[in-house]
Amino acid sequence: MIMSRIEAPSDEKTGNLLDRLRAGLPSEAVLTDPDVTASYANDMASFCEAGVPAVVVLPRTVEQVQHVMRTATELRVPVVPQGARTGLSGGANASEGCVVLSLTKMDRILEINPVDRIAVVEPGVVNATLSRAVNEHGLYYPPDPSSWEMCTIGGNIGTASGGLCCVKYGVTAEYVLGLDVVLADGRLMSTGRRTAKGVAGYDLTRLFVGSEGSLGIVVRAVLGLRPQPPQQLVLAAEFPSASAACDAVCRIMEGGHVPSLLELMDRTTVKAVNDLAHMGLPETTESLLLAAFDTPDPAADLAAVGALCEAAGASQVVPADDAAESELLLQARRLSLTALEAVKGTTMIDDVCVPRSKLAELLEGVDRIAEKYDLTIGVCAHAGDGNTHPTVCFDAADPDESRRARESFDEIMALGLELGGTITGEHGVGILKKEWLAREIGPVGLEMQRAVKAVFDPLGILNPGKLF
Amino acid sequence: MIMSRIEAPSDEKTGNLLDRLRAGLPSEAVLTDPDVTASYANDMASFCEAGVPAVVVLPRTVEQVQHVMRTATELRVPVVPQGARTGLSGGANASEGCVVLSLTKMDRILEINPVDRIAVVEPGVVNATLSRAVNEHGLYYPPDPSSWEMCTIGGNIGTASGGLCCVKYGVTAEYVLGLDVVLADGRLMSTGRRTAKGVAGYDLTRLFVGSEGSLGIVVRAVLGLRPQPPQQLVLAAEFPSASAACDAVCRIMEGGHVPSLLELMDRTTVKAVNDLAHMGLPETTESLLLAAFDTPDPAADLAAVGALCEAAGASQVVPADDAAESELLLQARRLSLTALEAVKGTTMIDDVCVPRSKLAELLEGVDRIAEKYDLTIGVCAHAGDGNTHPTVCFDAADPDESRRARESFDEIMALGLELGGTITGEHGVGILKKEWLAREIGPVGLEMQRAVKAVFDPLGILNPGKLF
Repeated sequence: MIMSRIEAPSDEKTGNLLDRLRAGLPSEAVLTDPDVTASYANDMASFCEAGVPAVVVLPRTVEQVQHVMRTATELRVPVVPQGARTGLSGGANASEGCVVLSLTKMDRILEINPVDRIAVVEPGVVNATLSRAVNEHGLYYPPDPSSWEMCTIGGNIGTASGGLCCVKYGVTAEYVLGLDVVLADGRLMSTGRRTAKGVAGYDLTRLFVGSEGSLGIVVRAVLGLRPQPPQQLVLAAEFPSASAACDAVCRIMEGGHVPSLLELMDRTTVKAVNDLAHMGLPETTESLLLAAFDTPDPAADLAAVGALCEAAGASQVVPADDAAESELLLQARRLSLTALEAVKGTTMIDDVCVPRSKLAELLEGVDRIAEKYDLTIGVCAHAGDGNTHPTVCFDAADPDESRRARESFDEIMALGLELGGTITGEHGVGILKKEWLAREIGPVGLEMQRAVKAVFDPLGILNPGKLF
Repeated sequence: MIMSRIEAPSDEKTGNLLDRLRAGLPSEAVLTDPDVTASYANDMASFCEAGVPAVVVLPRTVEQVQHVMRTATELRVPVVPQGARTGLSGGANASEGCVVLSLTKMDRILEINPVDRIAVVEPGVVNATLSRAVNEHGLYYPPDPSSWEMCTIGGNIGTASGGLCCVKYGVTAEYVLGLDVVLADGRLMSTGRRTAKGVAGYDLTRLFVGSEGSLGIVVRAVLGLRPQPPQQLVLAAEFPSASAACDAVCRIMEGGHVPSLLELMDRTTVKAVNDLAHMGLPETTESLLLAAFDTPDPAADLAAVGALCEAAGASQVVPADDAAESELLLQARRLSLTALEAVKGTTMIDDVCVPRSKLAELLEGVDRIAEKYDLTIGVCAHAGDGNTHPTVCFDAADPDESRRARESFDEIMALGLELGGTITGEHGVGILKKEWLAREIGPVGLEMQRAVKAVFDPLGILNPGKLF
């Protein structure tokens, strides 16, 4: 992690802030020990500045969150909302002298309703906890970011997180029906609904999803659920080139198939996973494609997709025999980022998403960029969505390599935009990509986004320095 | 239609407006004949005021729309965007002296891409035209409002339209990936993306969907598509009571089934359809439920659902033998609103959506309200979504009956809110329900919505008097 500091507030101001916060929070909910507060400074992004928080608060009720925001508004103190800090764009990094507002203690599942197919949750519920709880009712909460065992629903809402499931089931945004939000001034606002449909007024729910804590504090969410699908079955296909694998992806999607995941790992990623976990993946292939179906007859679907892979030039197609074998292949995919991090100690994980018809061009471009900067860049991708994670491996102790890493990272984003894509498919803008947001959305879009921000946060105290 | 007029602009102001508009539009795109412009005054809602437009413009290009908006901003003239005016809330009604901006001539399908599963369209494309065009590529654009043979994609985006498909495929909002929007001052803004995923900045795309033309003019949309599912097969089940039918709906959804439609028609609606079209539907039942599946084995799914209907007390369960029989049943459902309109000459169509677990309570309440006001209220419903259309049948020439119709209509909305529902599942707020919006979203929500409106439309010229 590379940190830089912003101007610190005075001791007097901080003392006043702490007194005011303690007036409405139990003492154990206000953390000021510098060793402890420092541990809340960063999320999991590299190259993102972070300040030292003045205080970390851990409210357990909506009223306590309202108290925190009223206090922050009165004293004009920045507030940085945090979930599990598994984000990859610095969106949850502390700013100097801020109040870190950790929602992790608001972790109750308030309701699971199988008839209405909804769950009502507090923001600190861990994704995996919710997933398992709804499974017990025969229900399914699809969004499954790689960090799903740690990350919180509030954080998922903040970044509109994706995951492996998106190619069939979409991202977090599709599952957020309604929100209770504490505004910057402490007032409580409800958006959306708990019904299947609803169009009363502007869709402020979706405005908050993906807003990275910059518009208000989500304190309660109504989430849509689906019936639990059958266990998925996975197929692995080896390709002699990235472009052949991408061709297979296009044939599968054009053929009308609806895989429950369609993931790609390049040779670097495969080798990294083998090195880390000795999984015996085939290192001789350039591109490994994983496809899965959770349909009534997944074997039939895998056979059809396997044939398309062969037609696109796959050297080998291996359908998993059962759920256990399938789970092993998924584990390999889920380990990709961790494995790539082990290559050189540090990574920068890009998140460029392009129209899937442009996937091959993007991957070829990433290869060129890796060569140009003399770097190892492993690519794993939610190929079915065109959402790639080119992961730059570098030694943070080597200034020149670090510089090249940063430059190659940016060049990949530029390429993504050139191909009609976006700088971020699911990780968010945070600090890491804020200079790139303007390039993607243009000056008019940026002006309107800033104006919307000012409506909800006129004093600019909510997660300042992020997004814009 | 019941109309009232707002203050008219001066002749001089109108003359100036026409001159300025003609400077950037071909002559055939500027309509001023009072008989013609009057025909653009209303959408299909009852009880909604409408003024006489000063002019109707029919631009064919983005630049022409920009010219219209620049002119309107300079002269502070209200602009009312319109599609096919099939709306049911008065959202497209003219205000006195306004520019009616009809997007119906911008009706090109610009792209259909089977690999990326997107279509790029202008706003005036008719829903059915798009549906058929994508079908030819093996693709499917699900949103299917009742007016799908007439209504435009721009209008669908404006109201976030639903339809019969929503229980499985969701509403229009789920399919809008990106927009080009002409702002009130004539500037062009792009939102969203043409990729499967993307989280760069606030989701302004979704903010515009359902905004009823009050934030900007949609001039181009990137729409997500799905592969075409198998032909659906429909089952009809007769129930001795509304509550038994609602119980079946709950059992079906709780059982994890995913019907492609799940519709309810009450006895009044069934009789009205028979009277209009002699379809031979069973008039002796209190509630007719239609369920459909477009799965690989729809007959098996219908058998399972049929058994649940019987367990809930269905007196008869009749699966359609084939696609033709299925289509006939759907036709009956699609004729419902037209048939109910024929009962007394005029209708007010409510659009209350409740959590589906509350559907029985809502229907019982509607019965009570019909009795209290001595009115015929037929109910058809997207039962699987809890989205009901209680349709008040009345004689508009009878002032007392008209008054009772309006009061009963409001009482149904109050009941919907009481049951945790929304005043509008898919028709929008428009003029008809604007007093109710505040009751649903509360004062804080209303304040923030108005502030968002002011960001995009600081002069208040975009579809004034709607929504708020």
